Amino acid sequence: MTLSIYLAGQIHDDWRDQLKSKAKQHDLDLKFSGPQENHDLSDDIGEQILGQQPNQIDRDDAASSINNFRTQLMMQQADAVIALFGESYKQWNTAMDAGIAIGLNKPLILIRPESLVHPLKELSNKANVTVETIDQALDVLVYTFK
Amino acid sequence: MTLSIYLAGQIHDDWRDQLKSKAKQHDLDLKFSGPQENHDLSDDIGEQILGQQPNQIDRDDAASSINNFRTQLMMQQADAVIALFGESYKQWNTAMDAGIAIGLNKPLILIRPESLVHPLKELSNKANVTVETIDQALDVLVYTFK
Amino acid sequence: MTLSIYLAGQIHDDWRDQLKSKAKQHDLDLKFSGPQENHDLSDDIGEQILGQQPNQIDRDDAASSINNFRTQLMMQQADAVIALFGESYKQWNTAMDAGIAIGLNKPLILIRPESLVHPLKELSNKANVTVETIDQALDVLVYTFK
Amino acid sequence: MTLSIYLAGQIHDDWRDQLKSKAKQHDLDLKFSGPQENHDLSDDIGEQILGQQPNQIDRDDAASSINNFRTQLMMQQADAVIALFGESYKQWNTAMDAGIAIGLNKPLILIRPESLVHPLKELSNKANVTVETIDQALDVLVYTFK
Amino acid sequence: MTLSIYLAGQIHDDWRDQLKSKAKQHDLDLKFSGPQENHDLSDDIGEQILGQQPNQIDRDDAASSINNFRTQLMMQQADAVIALFGESYKQWNTAMDAGIAIGLNKPLILIRPESLVHPLKELSNKANVTVETIDQALDVLVYTFK
Amino acid sequence: MTLSIYLAGQIHDDWRDQLKSKAKQHDLDLKFSGPQENHDLSDDIGEQILGQQPNQIDRDDAASSINNFRTQLMMQQADAVIALFGESYKQWNTAMDAGIAIGLNKPLILIRPESLVHPLKELSNKANVTVETIDQALDVLVYTFK
Amino acid sequence: MTLSIYLAGQIHDDWRDQLKSKAKQHDLDLKFSGPQENHDLSDDIGEQILGQQPNQIDRDDAASSINNFRTQLMMQQADAVIALFGESYKQWNTAMDAGIAIGLNKPLILIRPESLVHPLKELSNKANVTVETIDQALDVLVYTFK
Amino acid sequence: MTLSIYLAGQIHDDWRDQLKSKAKQHDLDLKFSGPQENHDLSDDIGEQILGQQPNQIDRDDAASSINNFRTQLMMQQADAVIALFGESYKQWNTAMDAGIAIGLNKPLILIRPESLVHPLKELSNKANVTVETIDQALDVLVYTFK
Repeated sequence: MTLSIYLAGQIHDDWRDQLKSKAKQHDLDLKFSGPQENHDLSDDIGEQILGQQPNQIDRDDAASSINNFRTQLMMQQADAVIALFGESYKQWNTAMDAGIAIGLNKPLILIRPESLVHPLKELSNKANVTVETIDQALDVLVYTFK
Repeated sequence: MTLSIYLAGQIHDDWRDQLKSKAKQHDLDLKFSGPQENHDLSDDIGEQILGQQPNQIDRDDAASSINNFRTQLMMQQADAVIALFGESYKQWNTAMDAGIAIGLNKPLILIRPESLVHPLKELSNKANVTVETIDQALDVLVYTFK
Repeated sequence: MTLSIYLAGQIHDDWRDQLKSKAKQHDLDLKFSGPQENHDLSDDIGEQILGQQPNQIDRDDAASSINNFRTQLMMQQADAVIALFGESYKQWNTAMDAGIAIGLNKPLILIRPESLVHPLKELSNKANVTVETIDQALDVLVYTFK
Repeated sequence: MTLSIYLAGQIHDDWRDQLKSKAKQHDLDLKFSGPQENHDLSDDIGEQILGQQPNQIDRDDAASSINNFRTQLMMQQADAVIALFGESYKQWNTAMDAGIAIGLNKPLILIRPESLVHPLKELSNKANVTVETIDQALDVLVYTFK
Repeated sequence: MTLSIYLAGQIHDDWRDQLKSKAKQHDLDLKFSGPQENHDLSDDIGEQILGQQPNQIDRDDAASSINNFRTQLMMQQADAVIALFGESYKQWNTAMDAGIAIGLNKPLILIRPESLVHPLKELSNKANVTVETIDQALDVLVYTFK
Repeated sequence: MTLSIYLAGQIHDDWRDQLKSKAKQHDLDLKFSGPQENHDLSDDIGEQILGQQPNQIDRDDAASSINNFRTQLMMQQADAVIALFGESYKQWNTAMDAGIAIGLNKPLILIRPESLVHPLKELSNKANVTVETIDQALDVLVYTFK
Repeated sequence: MTLSIYLAGQIHDDWRDQLKSKAKQHDLDLKFSGPQENHDLSDDIGEQILGQQPNQIDRDDAASSINNFRTQLMMQQADAVIALFGESYKQWNTAMDAGIAIGLNKPLILIRPESLVHPLKELSNKANVTVETIDQALDVLVYTFK
Repeated sequence: MTLSIYLAGQIHDDWRDQLKSKAKQHDLDLKFSGPQENHDLSDDIGEQILGQQPNQIDRDDAASSINNFRTQLMMQQADAVIALFGESYKQWNTAMDAGIAIGLNKPLILIRPESLVHPLKELSNKANVTVETIDQALDVLVYTFK
């Protein structure tokens, strides 16, 4: 069994690398994808490709159109989605991606700290599995191959 | 043409009533649904129906299971979704509901203030229409009937 | 909002009548459907329509083909499914109907006594809401209209 | 042609190993998946990953959330489902999995002893093929490659 | 419950009228649709609307394009399909319509005389219910409302 | 039978009114929808609702986002689509709408003059029925009710 | 590009071998599947696996349940379907399989002699391409790779 | 990640070769498909395979039936679609293919010169990304792999 996992969540630290490097230790047939983690590139990509835009709204829309194209392709190819929430940042993209996964009936693992139980209770209830740490999310993947 | 609109967003003020009362003035064949707006009831409904739960996590999960059942029924019957974001609250349910609408291919109107352009740029790009005020969202509905 | 609810479960007592009569007190726009509750008719319908069959297997298959036709029509028209389990009977039809509802992405309420928590844990986790009594299931429907 | 088959059914004896070892003799391009067969692990996995739970209901729900994640991934990748019923155990997961397969329009083989003809008549009628033994189920797969 | 039934089958006798008039006696909420029963009109409709065609193939294709438009609309609105086979005529449209119903997962009743058991065995096995007479098909519908 | 028909095509003359008024003479249960026929309103609606835009591209995108929201709602509710092409205008919206109808498996009638046979040959082959005049398209609808 | 083609049609001569051997000469990445071509095996398979049946109807139903399981798996994996009709045999399975392909939106090539234009006009109109010979069907596949 | 891209657009110059050769320089796992680029072959293929047709309409319909079969297969296998518009030609196939991609929810990149902003505003709004040059479209693909 090969599994493709889309990793939704913020792109301000290296949580995806942690997850991937732990996954590698288990030697499982896992492929990971996720949003563009180079934050500046993610914000600039619209103007890099389409040229300077007349204002900030257009600059943002240009970038997001390209990021959304990329995400839709990866989400389509994913067998499951892991969505990580933390205490910083608005993380609306993470919640939107989790919602899209639910709408497309993709299995979903939610990672969130205990402090966010209440505001994420509906999303947690919709997810297949809710855990608190990256290690626990990996444990779920490891178990899937057992 | 009859249209059913699901109104996703926070439940801390009367924005839905404002929208509905303005809609009524136009005498259009519109039906609105949305999350439980009685905030205490929304949080208590799990224990009200299922009895006292052993801890806060279970209390929240019980409530959210019933809220999600209700939302899924309403979303299924909706022809379109309006999602409103403001500067307060985490609003992850709003982003999740918008994501589900996208995953289900339901037409989506996003209402958000100019201050939230950047953090909502991907969601805005996925929505059919993005506006800044409730009045503008209503204008879109009014135009749909013209 | 009109809701059509399919009531999956055993047909040996009047639990559906109890639910319907309580629902009537709330004056909600609810329509109920469910399997044929006349047990003898349900078992005989194959031979009643198709004539005597060569053996018990064929007699059962004839009846079930007609019961399944009836169920598929009702399930298609249902907005949600309530599945009730008790301590008697094998109830494999109930579990199959619940599974079909899950496969079709129909919202699902599970009613089961506390004694069945363990054997129904996977189905409970897949259901939107799990309750222990008919009254609680009705409470969930009542809340949906609030 | 490569076929992936999900083997739904109880996990108290080695029926899957019997089926797989017979399949191997035919040298067919078959891949099998199924629920976690280590029964203790299957029950413990929730607490193993998520830590001790406040009560048995939560312990069971934690385990089943992870088992359901695993099953949904395997079911999605399966080309067909074999569901085995015997005279022991409640086997509601088996009936639910068979129902999900029906809801998802996955081809389904039902294995059940003659003694269970009557209680499984609706499920048998919904299955593509009903047989009484593991050998017969394998014969159907072998024929598929002829 | 309202049911819309598409009546697939030959158009050379009044079997649909028989079925409808018997249905009327039961006072059920049934709506029937079916192919154009005026055989000459059905063959001529292409040239009636599109003008004379250069050859028989084009004449037939013109007519069938319009008949297929009509059938697709009716099939989409149908809750179930009844397909009747007899000993005369090729009846390939009937088999195609039954196949489309199967592909669309619409419940299907097959009516065929005992003499056609063998050549229709695969279609019979795919149908929900197989009967031999119009009366029996009606009995299945009547039972659905019980 | 009630049919909802979406009328795709240019908005520079009154062809929809012609079709509707002829349809009225036949007293059929037909509902029509289509793009905004007030051409200036259709182009201005973005700035009317969202305020002045920084440039023509944004002005056009604002208008089209609202027009597309409107069209998606109407297309979703349509049972069939009629797409009319003439010798003037680019008519790319018409071709896109016809393509969406094909992608969504909605029955499609194409109206095009003989002079456009060659450039529309692929679209004609994908449509259910191809005719040359509005009267012929109406004849197809009339026949559907016979 | 790899294409899997299901070859629907009678199993009384070697038309599939002819098609496959011609395809081989073109060295294209084509995989073919189709119904069981050993006619006796196809009719006997039910009793071979399930044991002697009480009558001819049950014998036929047993065989067809296994043949349908096999066909459904192959049809699911097929990118396109070729359906061949000739002047002999009832060929209702061919028409049913073509109908299923249409219902599932699989591209369909119809092969039929000129003598069958009229009785197959609706199916021909629903097929993507209609040809008269096996060579022509192969030409269409060859062109697909050009 | 492997991506299959369908290149919709006119076939009168070598824009696809330009795109493919630039893509090759980036050494990405991209596969491209598209309409038959040999214009004469594309127009003649109907008569080449099916023989001389009675008139131009039939000649065109024969060719387009085979081209559409080919396109449907390629579109089904595509992960995304690029649609290019220029100032010459009617390009209705391009708009139809883009519409089909939208109806099937395939990610879509639109390439169009600034001069076509207004007539393509609805299609541009429906596309995921709109660019002006082939190089920019390739940049979007390159970014997708970053």
